[in-house]
Amino acid sequence: MKQYCIGVDFGTLSGRAILVDTSNGAILSSAVWEYAHGVMEHSLPCGKPLPAEWALHHPADYLEVLEHTIPRIVKAAKVRAEDVVGIGIDCTASSVLPVTKDGTPLCFLPEYEAEPHAYIHLWKHHAAQQYADRMTETALARGEKWLAAYGGKVSCEGALPKLLQMLEEAPQVYAAAAYWMEATDWLVWQLCGKPTMSSCCAGYKYLYYDGTFPSEDYFSALDSRLAHVIRDKCGLPILPIYSRAGMLTQRMGHRLGLTSATAVAVGMIDAHACLPAAGIAGPGEMVMILGTSACLMACGEHEHSIPGCYAVKDGMLPGYWGYEGGQNSVGDLFAWMLNNFVPASFQQSAGDRHISMHEYLSELAEAKRPGESGLLALDWFNGNRSVLMDSGLTGMILGLTLQTKPEDIYRALAESAAYGARMIIETFRKNGVNVDKLLVTGGISRKNRMMMQIYADVLHMPIRALPSSHGSALGSAIAAAVAAGCYDTVEQSIEHMAVKEDKVYDPDSENSRIYDQLYQLYARLYGHYGKDHCSAMKELIDIKRRV
Amino acid sequence: MKQYCIGVDFGTLSGRAILVDTSNGAILSSAVWEYAHGVMEHSLPCGKPLPAEWALHHPADYLEVLEHTIPRIVKAAKVRAEDVVGIGIDCTASSVLPVTKDGTPLCFLPEYEAEPHAYIHLWKHHAAQQYADRMTETALARGEKWLAAYGGKVSCEGALPKLLQMLEEAPQVYAAAAYWMEATDWLVWQLCGKPTMSSCCAGYKYLYYDGTFPSEDYFSALDSRLAHVIRDKCGLPILPIYSRAGMLTQRMGHRLGLTSATAVAVGMIDAHACLPAAGIAGPGEMVMILGTSACLMACGEHEHSIPGCYAVKDGMLPGYWGYEGGQNSVGDLFAWMLNNFVPASFQQSAGDRHISMHEYLSELAEAKRPGESGLLALDWFNGNRSVLMDSGLTGMILGLTLQTKPEDIYRALAESAAYGARMIIETFRKNGVNVDKLLVTGGISRKNRMMMQIYADVLHMPIRALPSSHGSALGSAIAAAVAAGCYDTVEQSIEHMAVKEDKVYDPDSENSRIYDQLYQLYARLYGHYGKDHCSAMKELIDIKRRV
Repeated sequence: MKQYCIGVDFGTLSGRAILVDTSNGAILSSAVWEYAHGVMEHSLPCGKPLPAEWALHHPADYLEVLEHTIPRIVKAAKVRAEDVVGIGIDCTASSVLPVTKDGTPLCFLPEYEAEPHAYIHLWKHHAAQQYADRMTETALARGEKWLAAYGGKVSCEGALPKLLQMLEEAPQVYAAAAYWMEATDWLVWQLCGKPTMSSCCAGYKYLYYDGTFPSEDYFSALDSRLAHVIRDKCGLPILPIYSRAGMLTQRMGHRLGLTSATAVAVGMIDAHACLPAAGIAGPGEMVMILGTSACLMACGEHEHSIPGCYAVKDGMLPGYWGYEGGQNSVGDLFAWMLNNFVPASFQQSAGDRHISMHEYLSELAEAKRPGESGLLALDWFNGNRSVLMDSGLTGMILGLTLQTKPEDIYRALAESAAYGARMIIETFRKNGVNVDKLLVTGGISRKNRMMMQIYADVLHMPIRALPSSHGSALGSAIAAAVAAGCYDTVEQSIEHMAVKEDKVYDPDSENSRIYDQLYQLYARLYGHYGKDHCSAMKELIDIKRRV
Repeated sequence: MKQYCIGVDFGTLSGRAILVDTSNGAILSSAVWEYAHGVMEHSLPCGKPLPAEWALHHPADYLEVLEHTIPRIVKAAKVRAEDVVGIGIDCTASSVLPVTKDGTPLCFLPEYEAEPHAYIHLWKHHAAQQYADRMTETALARGEKWLAAYGGKVSCEGALPKLLQMLEEAPQVYAAAAYWMEATDWLVWQLCGKPTMSSCCAGYKYLYYDGTFPSEDYFSALDSRLAHVIRDKCGLPILPIYSRAGMLTQRMGHRLGLTSATAVAVGMIDAHACLPAAGIAGPGEMVMILGTSACLMACGEHEHSIPGCYAVKDGMLPGYWGYEGGQNSVGDLFAWMLNNFVPASFQQSAGDRHISMHEYLSELAEAKRPGESGLLALDWFNGNRSVLMDSGLTGMILGLTLQTKPEDIYRALAESAAYGARMIIETFRKNGVNVDKLLVTGGISRKNRMMMQIYADVLHMPIRALPSSHGSALGSAIAAAVAAGCYDTVEQSIEHMAVKEDKVYDPDSENSRIYDQLYQLYARLYGHYGKDHCSAMKELIDIKRRV
């Protein structure tokens, strides 16, 4: 008898559900549903304007994803509802919302619908930066040992700075919230009727380190009202990923066309769900997700502190430390260039040949040799996450001449992203986390052959590019298969269900030799501008803020 | 009785002649003639290909300019030939050619027409770089005191490195050349029948310093065959500028429709001819020519050594030291951007409004405040002439973010050019040459209001922008008026004939305050990359050369 699992991946603009054969990981059907409210950056649905740097989601959109996609994929795959044995969820994170004791998002209540803080604070809601800074300063002042596990800095994208912002700016919403939940945990609650917290979310987004949250003393030092914040707002049982949160409720089963014999897996962060999908079941292998930004993840057997990277026990795979580094802009670099700096003649030529501008520029850039343009860029157009954790850094292009062409800059941006990845991987290695094998997923891995070759050449490693565009959703389905008992171990489910095919890009030794020299220069500029030998970038931002 | 003079300015792509009323400098008529052969960079007229970095002119094109423009402007102005009392010439420099003893360019002889070295080596012929380097090294090794007067380096754009290249690469042409002449001196010879050398060319382009050329010992040290190079190839009387080289020959008068009672002034370098046109007759005033590149010139009463700048006695005005600094790319920076990095949407918008892309981008960039973009650029896209004299430097843009727009980069490039000018002016002052008043001429001064305001704000000085597009030609006509005896002194002729009208851009004190901060950052990056603290630019070029 065939058994099937569903994985649902909640992204920034839409949700995506897939139905997977648990015996081999084959994806039988899929469906995407766009959020009706999109990302709310300028105003609430009622018209109330939002300040700068805000980014909200509407939780009703998430429920719509479930209702519109799941019945559809079950029908499309022509499987029986009773053969769907598990469902797994992953979300962007920290995308976090206040809910009542019964799990109702506060924004669903009329009295809070005009209250921005009552909605989901999306991962890229950056308005909590000052609260993150305060948390970092307080942690430094108190010598909190967990800080090192979070790269030495509290990220404004985490759950707690956003909660602190709510306390300061909307104390009535703070008071009304029974829980301050990750959207993935809230969705799992909606499915199985039991409120829980994923070990993945707790570890990466709630500073849950080595079995505890930061202490009451720490929170008191931040704000006396926060002393019991964990107990009061985050007091849920923490369940390990790949375990079962519960079974689908009858009510939800009815809404989704599934039976209540469907296991609901503990939720995951979307990026981390890529690990099982890529077939990574232990240390030594890294998965790199290349989309608008980049996420680099690998497991280790022991604890290490890696600058600018997160270290979470059981955060990626049970029994291992999960290490995560990131680059704030990769695909965004190309989007920036395409949106602003592509001449009409290029558009004409690409249009004549019916190819995209990415294909056109890649073709021109691919014809160049490493080093030929004489350009070197720093990929910090949106700050540096790993290994410097510094949002006050900016991009740079050096080596410009009157002969510099658009394709030269395009290639230099691609190379800078690869150098940035090398810097992170070398930092992993230097701090004791092996990276012997590299799997790449995300939009760029499927679309940009030039970029993949550059990564292989810069990193001196074969790059295994995964073809599926369903990486996270497949990871969620794999977790669901474990939760449903289809496999005894996580390793087994990964072995059977992970993406099989890949395309391998082997490094070219001559290119690698040249890139070694260029990378040494990159590393020097990295140190010069990134480690405060030169404060030019910061001073420019200061001037910009003052004028 | 009205008297008239003609000024002819030989540029890179065309020659321009004007007919001027000597009593008031009014330009009565003008004509432009494009060179039939243009700049020969890829092949000779016979089809013979040229190596990289070559740039030649055909001397026949120069004679065509004279024949096509002079009769036309005389006719257009409706003046009598006998009332045209003088003619002056200026040329790009060092644009230099080998000629026979009777003044015939070697390329006119059938046996040399397929010989690249037989043509005019244009100022931007950069293929003699290695010979310039050799001359610098030898001068340094011997402690030649003239080296400091040339910014501490022999420029590959000068006359002698090009001659050395000819000796090495085409010794038969070298042997056949009776003279190695500046085109301006050759043209004066064609007009008056007497071979001479302009003090301006000798001083700025032949290393004629303090009354002598470099010594025979120096030339012997370079190459034993060069010991008598000055006597053998450059042995012409040096005449001061503003003096008379001779009278127009009957034969040439006939060809040009003028009488032989026309005085022919000693030739000038085109840039230096702008000084009298701008009304500068003594120290304290600088003229800045802003075109594709920039030239900054001022006179001083005493000798000073200014890094990266030339110092020539009597080179600009009789009795004074003429100081010249330069920036290799100014208008070229904008051209680079417009040719490569302007999106189709901008072209559409500018087209809809029937304005040029420069106007469109300037409008957008002008709406921004100094410092608002957070960008800082180094204007070294074609190397740095003053004050570093280093062609191995390249451009840089720092502070890039995903929000950076084309108009931000456009403005940052304009600002970088202004910072570069400030660096040169401060270096002039620091070394004893006053700059109290600033006149600006060249294409940018007439077309780009935003740029002029940025210069005023960055430099803390009112900028007087001259409206005429005939600056150099007017300067040649002023020299002709002195040579023809219309005035007793250079000062008088300048006073009467210089451009009168100008547009003044006053600095905005608030903008200047912000630019002071940005300039400090520019100066730091300038020192870091320009003075070998960081060799990143050089190493990138090394890698580029090797791949």
